[in-house]
Amino acid sequence: MALTGVLRPGFAQVRVLSMEDALVHYRDRIGLNVVSTGDDGRVYMKAYDEFDHHSIVLRECDEAGLDMMAFKVENEIALKEYEEKLLKEGIAVDHIAIGEQPGVGRRISFVAPTGHRFDLYAEMELSTKGPLVKNPDLWRTEPKGMKALRFDHCLLYGSDVDGTKKIFEDILGFTMTECIKEEDGTLIAIFLSCGNKAHDLALVRHEEDNKLHHVSFLVEDWTSIRDAADIITRYDISRDIGPTRHGITRGQTIYFFDPSGNRNEVFSGGYSFYPGDPTRVWEMPNVGKAIFYYEQQLNDRFMNVVT
Amino acid sequence: MALTGVLRPGFAQVRVLSMEDALVHYRDRIGLNVVSTGDDGRVYMKAYDEFDHHSIVLRECDEAGLDMMAFKVENEIALKEYEEKLLKEGIAVDHIAIGEQPGVGRRISFVAPTGHRFDLYAEMELSTKGPLVKNPDLWRTEPKGMKALRFDHCLLYGSDVDGTKKIFEDILGFTMTECIKEEDGTLIAIFLSCGNKAHDLALVRHEEDNKLHHVSFLVEDWTSIRDAADIITRYDISRDIGPTRHGITRGQTIYFFDPSGNRNEVFSGGYSFYPGDPTRVWEMPNVGKAIFYYEQQLNDRFMNVVT
Amino acid sequence: MALTGVLRPGFAQVRVLSMEDALVHYRDRIGLNVVSTGDDGRVYMKAYDEFDHHSIVLRECDEAGLDMMAFKVENEIALKEYEEKLLKEGIAVDHIAIGEQPGVGRRISFVAPTGHRFDLYAEMELSTKGPLVKNPDLWRTEPKGMKALRFDHCLLYGSDVDGTKKIFEDILGFTMTECIKEEDGTLIAIFLSCGNKAHDLALVRHEEDNKLHHVSFLVEDWTSIRDAADIITRYDISRDIGPTRHGITRGQTIYFFDPSGNRNEVFSGGYSFYPGDPTRVWEMPNVGKAIFYYEQQLNDRFMNVVT
Amino acid sequence: MALTGVLRPGFAQVRVLSMEDALVHYRDRIGLNVVSTGDDGRVYMKAYDEFDHHSIVLRECDEAGLDMMAFKVENEIALKEYEEKLLKEGIAVDHIAIGEQPGVGRRISFVAPTGHRFDLYAEMELSTKGPLVKNPDLWRTEPKGMKALRFDHCLLYGSDVDGTKKIFEDILGFTMTECIKEEDGTLIAIFLSCGNKAHDLALVRHEEDNKLHHVSFLVEDWTSIRDAADIITRYDISRDIGPTRHGITRGQTIYFFDPSGNRNEVFSGGYSFYPGDPTRVWEMPNVGKAIFYYEQQLNDRFMNVVT
Repeated sequence: MALTGVLRPGFAQVRVLSMEDALVHYRDRIGLNVVSTGDDGRVYMKAYDEFDHHSIVLRECDEAGLDMMAFKVENEIALKEYEEKLLKEGIAVDHIAIGEQPGVGRRISFVAPTGHRFDLYAEMELSTKGPLVKNPDLWRTEPKGMKALRFDHCLLYGSDVDGTKKIFEDILGFTMTECIKEEDGTLIAIFLSCGNKAHDLALVRHEEDNKLHHVSFLVEDWTSIRDAADIITRYDISRDIGPTRHGITRGQTIYFFDPSGNRNEVFSGGYSFYPGDPTRVWEMPNVGKAIFYYEQQLNDRFMNVVT
Repeated sequence: MALTGVLRPGFAQVRVLSMEDALVHYRDRIGLNVVSTGDDGRVYMKAYDEFDHHSIVLRECDEAGLDMMAFKVENEIALKEYEEKLLKEGIAVDHIAIGEQPGVGRRISFVAPTGHRFDLYAEMELSTKGPLVKNPDLWRTEPKGMKALRFDHCLLYGSDVDGTKKIFEDILGFTMTECIKEEDGTLIAIFLSCGNKAHDLALVRHEEDNKLHHVSFLVEDWTSIRDAADIITRYDISRDIGPTRHGITRGQTIYFFDPSGNRNEVFSGGYSFYPGDPTRVWEMPNVGKAIFYYEQQLNDRFMNVVT
Repeated sequence: MALTGVLRPGFAQVRVLSMEDALVHYRDRIGLNVVSTGDDGRVYMKAYDEFDHHSIVLRECDEAGLDMMAFKVENEIALKEYEEKLLKEGIAVDHIAIGEQPGVGRRISFVAPTGHRFDLYAEMELSTKGPLVKNPDLWRTEPKGMKALRFDHCLLYGSDVDGTKKIFEDILGFTMTECIKEEDGTLIAIFLSCGNKAHDLALVRHEEDNKLHHVSFLVEDWTSIRDAADIITRYDISRDIGPTRHGITRGQTIYFFDPSGNRNEVFSGGYSFYPGDPTRVWEMPNVGKAIFYYEQQLNDRFMNVVT
Repeated sequence: MALTGVLRPGFAQVRVLSMEDALVHYRDRIGLNVVSTGDDGRVYMKAYDEFDHHSIVLRECDEAGLDMMAFKVENEIALKEYEEKLLKEGIAVDHIAIGEQPGVGRRISFVAPTGHRFDLYAEMELSTKGPLVKNPDLWRTEPKGMKALRFDHCLLYGSDVDGTKKIFEDILGFTMTECIKEEDGTLIAIFLSCGNKAHDLALVRHEEDNKLHHVSFLVEDWTSIRDAADIITRYDISRDIGPTRHGITRGQTIYFFDPSGNRNEVFSGGYSFYPGDPTRVWEMPNVGKAIFYYEQQLNDRFMNVVT
């Protein structure tokens, strides 16, 4: 196998204040399919172009935010290897039993230095609502809303960015594709890839730990970003910024909030990362352009509102 | 590293009947940059969004076609390992000295059962015309012509598709993402990935060996496919088919010929491949739809004209 | 008023073999709204971005084709003036009573030399499903299917193209924006505008009279053409040709058939016509490029299949 | 003729502080062709898809702004009729001799109540760089920069909006397609059409007279707006706002400044206006959404910076 170890982002479990409102948002606006609902009320969803059972888990709770982000690894061997390495680095590892989420194999779980919980797993059942595989048409049923293709990545905020970076690079084999750096070398933001994507996980230095900046979904192209913007305005969804482009990753993007205040992104394009490509580096005077290539400046909301 | 072994397609060396005409085509129409010209007349080119020294080599010759396709591997260790494995399978391995192409490290070279020559290498110098890396703007200079982003893959024709498949899967670690199959299981066409792309190499069963069907370049989106079509008509470039979409890979595409008769493709979109995704299978009655999703039928030229 | 006389295409009454199948096609695939159904079974539809009561009338019948195409004129004065002029040219004029179609004022009706029936009317009620007008959002309800914006024009086939041209130019004030011409000056195809559109009516010389080539709907852009193509394949709609571009008008286009065999087009773009612009002229050796700019050749079906 | 009286916007004469800088901006970035340079240093330009000699005139001057906007009328008869009507309304009319601008027939000129000078003319020579007309390819030479298709409209600021509206409606036959209104009925902004476009001229109430808000150019589609945004950032052009969409006209848009501080817009899409369509009305609490549909709020710069 050419892709080994951590294969890709698997799912994110997001806390929402009202499941009813969240369903309208994630299902009808972003366009995810509801795959199943658990006995504990958690709702399992996936984008129409994803094979695995689910990629987004919604959990009703009185505080918004991210429970955990989970990565799929190559196999059971990799899972064991990662557990050993984490323990060796002094990081506690929890075990989540098979079936704690429907269709998902056993998971190992750890809390990174930025306070975020990450899970790793090797097995997930295929959804019966996944893409067609025999003489496959483009889609099983007409995509709706923003026509999200897949859950793509998360951007997380926390203080010890270097600590989490070390785990993802040294233990989990991620590569830093791009970063924002202070003059003294302090990393302000890092973008980490485990394959050919410009980022599978991004981290921004922030005083408070364990914060979610956004959960991101891929859409087809720039025209899909406009369509998302139309939907956002038409249905009075709270918009943060966009349509615009990132300097970092070059992705075309729009940000908005779910009814609980969790930030979402739909994006398209941006470069593919080939191992061996140089790391792109942004210096602080260019941070505005790094984040919003057209605006060339940050807005306070984007920097400070997290869940 | 999460991507190991073979990292990606590196370059293709293409034979052209007239270098002068080929330059107009690949530089002004497809939009590649000329990086350098060798003493032996070979011209080294790259797309504006590629870092490495070159991805397309043009060689003037009295017969069109493909000299070889080369893949970049992780490192020297991988290179040695592949050599051993190839030899163990009874496949002769040639050594190409460092510098046989400017900026390229030593290569190993073998002829696959379908008659095609493939090279592997671990090192290539970065081009001075690559993407910016410090506070990087979108592009160094305005992209031109079809605005190709990168050399993406080749589709090759030959008889022993199973033999070449075996090498790429078993030795080089590729995965078959999609295929066309006869009722008796005979593979008519296979699409092989070494990372997250739907294909890095494709092979079609054909009586004659060592044939090139097309060299493919990535462009931004469906609108870029239209722009390419406009350029193709405006400059009287011989068009094969498109704008259309593939059933296989779902890529949006247009095919055309360089002045020497080598087929080119520019394409956009299509799915990303995640290891573990099921293999999509097309049956022969659906072969038209598999290749051209909108036309749902093949044209003779597409099936039979190769170089 | 700067636009006077004939303001624009108003509606087309199309004969379909099965109303049930036609509704799925025009409503769910093309995306028209059903406005009302008449006592005689006729169904009145409009695109989501049209104000008037309807723009497409479907009539169930055992023969497909076009009953009539109707144009909206400035006012009652214009209507009377056109009647006089038509009579003066020896063309019989029928009177269609107010309310023969719901919401439509009185019409005058004539048969043009190519055998087609054209109606003129000055009044049509607004639909309650039209675009919003007070602090208007983009759309009232989410557009669906191909997201047709409006009924745009018809292309009709008949023998005496010069005769019908004369009426539309001399009496109704249309301008020929573009044409295909034989060496001896014979007009093979003409494109007529009554405002700023490249065409509101097109006519092609053909031995049989009173034939419909296609009814055309406007969509937003080239990406909408791709989306229409996806829908066409996904739902096994019979496709004629496209996505492609016309040389004439430069419109981006795809052709397909309704379940009764009537050809439809969805198109986008193309130039705006400003009075005073020169007439674009295509000569017969370039007829392929005139019709299909990318293919540069006609297909038999496009030339010969009419209803 | 179905379009009568005022046919369309013809040209705008814009004052620039440095012709050298302005040429880089309008020629290389917006993509206009330079048609000729006058003895007095004025530069005459046109978009690649326009037939007439020029549509933009640049005049070097120590104060930025708009000298005049000119409309093309149907013929000499219309020109005379408009002169009579203007005089009858007590509006002074100047005569500009044929040839004051190269290729332009005689003009009549008046100052509207908002302080803006408008010219009317019936004749302009065709440019030799206009679109092809015989078996016409899409373009004569590859469009460059933002690939502007045509000069489209101006938005002007002044105090007596009602006065200028009266002239354009009552004398020149324009229709108000859309407006922003205060609760007491005061018109804050009006959008006027002389054909099928959503606007050919727009006016905003503002204490200072004779001010230019922006000169607008049409581009192909939303993807062109992204490409314009990329160019704006890449070449450090001062951006005002966008890519976004207007609520009014629904146009997709980006605003930026020429090196002299004159605001430009490139836009695409929006609805076509058919006479008889209701006037869309925006109330003041929705003014943000009216102007910027996605942002739903105005920025100070957009409201106050004019030349």
